Amino acid sequence: MTKMKKNRVLIFDTTLRDGEQSPGASMGQSEKVQVAKQLARLKVDIIEAGFPVASPGDFAAVQAVAEQIKGPRVAGLARCRDGDIKRCAEAVAPAGNRARIHVFLATSAIHRKFKLRKAKTEILRHAVAGVELATSLCQDVQFSPEDASRTEPEFLAEVCQAVIDVGATTINIPDTVGYAVPREFFSLVQYLFDHVRGIESTTVHVHCHNDLGLAVANSLAAIRAGARGVECTINGLGERAGNCSLEEVVMAIKTRSDALDGIWTGVNSKEIYRSSRMVSQLSGMAVQRNKAVVGANAFAHESGIHQDGMLKDRSTYEIMIPEDVGFSGTELVLGKHSGRHALKEHLLKMGFKLTALNLDRAYEAFTQLADKKKTIYDDDLVAIMQDQMPGVPQLYTLNYLHVSTGSGTVPTATVRLSREGQLSQDAACGDGPVDAALKTIERISKEPGKVLDFSVHSITQGKDALGEVSIQVEFAGGTVSGKGSSTDIVEASAKAYLNSLNRYLFSKSHSKKTPKEATRKKSSADSSGRRKSAAR
Amino acid sequence: MTKMKKNRVLIFDTTLRDGEQSPGASMGQSEKVQVAKQLARLKVDIIEAGFPVASPGDFAAVQAVAEQIKGPRVAGLARCRDGDIKRCAEAVAPAGNRARIHVFLATSAIHRKFKLRKAKTEILRHAVAGVELATSLCQDVQFSPEDASRTEPEFLAEVCQAVIDVGATTINIPDTVGYAVPREFFSLVQYLFDHVRGIESTTVHVHCHNDLGLAVANSLAAIRAGARGVECTINGLGERAGNCSLEEVVMAIKTRSDALDGIWTGVNSKEIYRSSRMVSQLSGMAVQRNKAVVGANAFAHESGIHQDGMLKDRSTYEIMIPEDVGFSGTELVLGKHSGRHALKEHLLKMGFKLTALNLDRAYEAFTQLADKKKTIYDDDLVAIMQDQMPGVPQLYTLNYLHVSTGSGTVPTATVRLSREGQLSQDAACGDGPVDAALKTIERISKEPGKVLDFSVHSITQGKDALGEVSIQVEFAGGTVSGKGSSTDIVEASAKAYLNSLNRYLFSKSHSKKTPKEATRKKSSADSSGRRKSAAR
Repeated sequence: MTKMKKNRVLIFDTTLRDGEQSPGASMGQSEKVQVAKQLARLKVDIIEAGFPVASPGDFAAVQAVAEQIKGPRVAGLARCRDGDIKRCAEAVAPAGNRARIHVFLATSAIHRKFKLRKAKTEILRHAVAGVELATSLCQDVQFSPEDASRTEPEFLAEVCQAVIDVGATTINIPDTVGYAVPREFFSLVQYLFDHVRGIESTTVHVHCHNDLGLAVANSLAAIRAGARGVECTINGLGERAGNCSLEEVVMAIKTRSDALDGIWTGVNSKEIYRSSRMVSQLSGMAVQRNKAVVGANAFAHESGIHQDGMLKDRSTYEIMIPEDVGFSGTELVLGKHSGRHALKEHLLKMGFKLTALNLDRAYEAFTQLADKKKTIYDDDLVAIMQDQMPGVPQLYTLNYLHVSTGSGTVPTATVRLSREGQLSQDAACGDGPVDAALKTIERISKEPGKVLDFSVHSITQGKDALGEVSIQVEFAGGTVSGKGSSTDIVEASAKAYLNSLNRYLFSKSHSKKTPKEATRKKSSADSSGRRKSAAR
Repeated sequence: MTKMKKNRVLIFDTTLRDGEQSPGASMGQSEKVQVAKQLARLKVDIIEAGFPVASPGDFAAVQAVAEQIKGPRVAGLARCRDGDIKRCAEAVAPAGNRARIHVFLATSAIHRKFKLRKAKTEILRHAVAGVELATSLCQDVQFSPEDASRTEPEFLAEVCQAVIDVGATTINIPDTVGYAVPREFFSLVQYLFDHVRGIESTTVHVHCHNDLGLAVANSLAAIRAGARGVECTINGLGERAGNCSLEEVVMAIKTRSDALDGIWTGVNSKEIYRSSRMVSQLSGMAVQRNKAVVGANAFAHESGIHQDGMLKDRSTYEIMIPEDVGFSGTELVLGKHSGRHALKEHLLKMGFKLTALNLDRAYEAFTQLADKKKTIYDDDLVAIMQDQMPGVPQLYTLNYLHVSTGSGTVPTATVRLSREGQLSQDAACGDGPVDAALKTIERISKEPGKVLDFSVHSITQGKDALGEVSIQVEFAGGTVSGKGSSTDIVEASAKAYLNSLNRYLFSKSHSKKTPKEATRKKSSADSSGRRKSAAR
C-alpha cells in the first residue's frame, strides 16, 4: 500500500496556462471552464488555470475555474512579484483548500544575464521573498526555477533549498526551452535529491517542452530519479513545439508500468480522446493524423501485412486498445427520425450536462442538421453542444449570406449582419467566395482584419460532413482566433470570422475597464458563481 | 579522425516506404522521385524507396528512385521469401553499388504464434535462407527481426548471429509497435553487442515507432548502446502514430551532441524545412502547428514574458536558430510586375530544376496568380511548381465551374469537365457549395466516391491566401488522396477531388495489367529512365 502510494505520479495539467499561451490557441473564459470541467472528468490532479496578473480576462478565468471545478487542485501562475502573487492568491481563493500559488523565477545564467539582469544573490533573495509572501496567502505553494535544465546544478540546489526552507511544498524543475536529454535530466533531478535537505518531504514535478521531441522521455527519466509530478498539456499544446503531451505520458505509464518501476497515475484514460477533441476544437489547434494516442491514424492500419496481422490477433500490431483512450471510431448514432428523447438519452450518455434550455437548442440544431445530413455522428453532436455553450456575447450575427463564384465569374458575396437588432447589408468581390464574404463583413463592421491562418477540417465523414473552420485574424488591437461550423464551407468561414470579430470587440470593450471593475462586473453577471462563493 | 568516424550516425530515411504506408499518405511514382531527390539534397545516407513486391506501382517507383538518385544508397524492402527478394533485387539494381536489399522476418513470440505460426527453428531457417539469397543478388544486405523489442533477447541474439554469419551487413532492431522505453531499449541493444559475435563489424540500426511518444528517445538510447543508424521519416510519417521523426532526431543530435557522446550526422539541416513542406504537400498529411522543429509554431513566441526575453537575447528561449532548419518564415518575394527572368532566377535560387517547358507553365500560372494576389510568397511558388510536376495523367480536367450558395439558397453547382477533349456538363444541388460541386463531378464521371477526409490550409497569409485542399476519397476499388490549390476554396476542392479521381482511374487501368506488363509499359513511357538504364 505504501509502495503503491509512493509510485503514484501526479498529473499537473497546464493546457489552460502554457497550452493557451501557444500562438493561435487563445480561449475565452467559458471555453476555459468547459475544458477545466473535462479535465476534472479526466481526473487530473492539478489544473493550472492561467496567469491571473496577465489580464483581467485571465484573472476572471482562473477565478471561474477555482469557483466551479470540484476535484482537482487549481493553480495560478505568478512571477516573484508582490502584485503577481497577491492577484494570484485572490484568483485561486474560491478553490479553498485546493488552491495553489505557483511562483516562478528564472535561475539559469542566460536568463540571469540577459532577461533579469540580476546576480545569484538577488535571485535567491527574490525567490525566498516570493515564496514567503505566497505561503502567507495560501497553504499550497509551488516554486519553479525557470530554465532549470540550463542552470548550474549547484545554484539550482541552493535555490531549491532556500524556497523549501521557507515553505514551498512542491518544487517544479522545468526544461523551459526543451533542451534536456533524458540521461542528463535524470542526473539533474538525482543531484537535487542528493543535495537538497527536506526535498523528499516536498513533491518534485517536472515541466518539459518538446523542442527536440524528448518531452515524454525526459519526464519519465525524471520520475525514475524521484520526481512524482508531470506537468503536461492535452495534445501537447504549449509555447513553440509545445509541452509534454498528457495523453502520451499517461499512456506510456499505463502501458509500460512494468518497465517503469510500477508507477501509475490517477487519470481516467477513457476520457483522453474526448479531452483531445474538445481542446482541439476550442483552441482551434488541429491534431495531426500521425499524432501519438489521439491522432486519426493512431489506431489505423494501412499496410497489408499489418492488416493481416491485426485480423489474426490485435496484439500483433497494437499495444493499446482504442477503447482504453475512449477512441470509439466514427460511431453512427442518430438519424433524421430520432426524437428528442433519443437525443437527450444519447447526450447524457456522452457525458453532457443538460438543462431544458440547452436541450431545446440542441434539438433545434439537431433537426436542422438532420435535414441536411443523413446520419448524425457523435462528433456532430459535440459540435452542436459546443455551439450552445455560453461564451462571448455575439455582437454581430449572420442574418443572410449569398455567394456566387466559379470560373469566369468574379466571386461576389452579399451579406446581411445583425448588430443589436439593427440590420446592415452590403456586397463585395473577392478572389474566392470566402474572401468575398469576409471582405463584405469587413466593409459592414468597419474593423480591418488580416487573416493569418485559415483551416477547415471535416468533423465527420461523407461529402455532407459538417466542416469546421478555424481562423486567426489580426485586428488593430491583436490577434484573435475564431471557429464556425456548417455543411456550407463559406457559411462556416463567415461564422468563424464573425466569431473572431465578436471576441475582438468584446476584449476591446473589456480591456478599457480597470481589472477591479472587470472582476466585479464578471462576478455579478455570473450569479451561479457568486452563489457558490457566498455559500463557502 | 577515427573517433570522429566512429561517432557518425547514419540516417536511413523510410518516408517512401513506412511513411507512405500511413493511412491517407499514398504518393505516386513521380511524387516519390521528387521526394527522393529532396532527400538526396538533405544528404540522408540511405533512402528506403518502397516494398517492390507490394504492387507494380511500388516496383516501378523503387526502380525509378534507384535509377535517378545520386548520392544516398537506395534500399527496397522484402519479406523472407524468394519472390520478394528477387523482385527487390531487380528494383534496386539500377543503383549499382549503392543498392541494398532489406529483408525482414518477425521474431517475437506474439508474431511467431499469431501471424507466422512458425516455431523458432523455422524462423531461424527462413531468416538464414532469405539473407543467403539476398547476398547472392546484392552485396549490401540489411536484416530486420520484426517486433524485436518484444522478442526474447536470447532468441533475438541467436537470429542476429545466424544472419550475420551468412553475410548480413546491417542489422536493424525495430520497435515495430512503439512499445519500448529508453532504458529497456538501451539494454536490449547492449545485450546484442555483448552476445553476438561479429556484430561490431556490421552496422546496427534502430527503427522506432512513436506510439508512446518515445521514438526519438529510444533511438538516442540505442545509439548510446552502440547503434550507428537511425531509421526515420520526414514529419514522423508512418504506420499509426508514425516513425521516429527525422527532423527531431537530427536536430537533437546536432543541438545536444555535447550531451550525446559527440555523435553527429551528415544531414544538411538547412534542407529540413523544405523537405517537410514537400512531404506534407505531396502526401496530403498536414503537420500540426505545435510539431517540433517543423511546425508553424516551432519558432513562434506568444507570451509577453517570452517575447520580452527574445528581444533581449534569442538564446533565452531558443535553442535552435530557425535558419538552421531552413525556416525562413513567410518571405515576400515577387509581385505582379516581376518578369519572367526574376521568376526564373528566384526558382533556381529555391533549388528547382527548370526546363523551358516547365518555366513557361510556371510563368503562366504565376501571372494568373499575380492577377489575384498582390504578393507572391515562396510558398505560392512551391505550390505552382508542384502543380507542374509530371504525375498521373489528368484524364478529367475542370473546364468550367459555377456555384451559388448562401442562407435561403439551395447550394447549386454547374460543372463542365473535359475528358480527352470531350466536354460534359451537368448540375447538382448539395448541402454546401463544395458538396454540390463534388456531387456534380460524381454525376458526370459516374464513379461513386465517398469523402473520408477533407481539410483546407492556407498556404500563405492574408484573406487572398492560396488555399490547399487535401481530400481522401473512397472509390469502389480503394481509398485515394488528392490535392488542389486555388484562391477559390470551391475550385480548390473540385480540383482536389478530380486529382483523386484521376489517380483512382489511373491505378484501376494500371492494376489490370500483370506486373511485368506494367513495368515494361512504365520503362518505355519513361524515356529518360530507360536511357539511364541503357547507359549503365
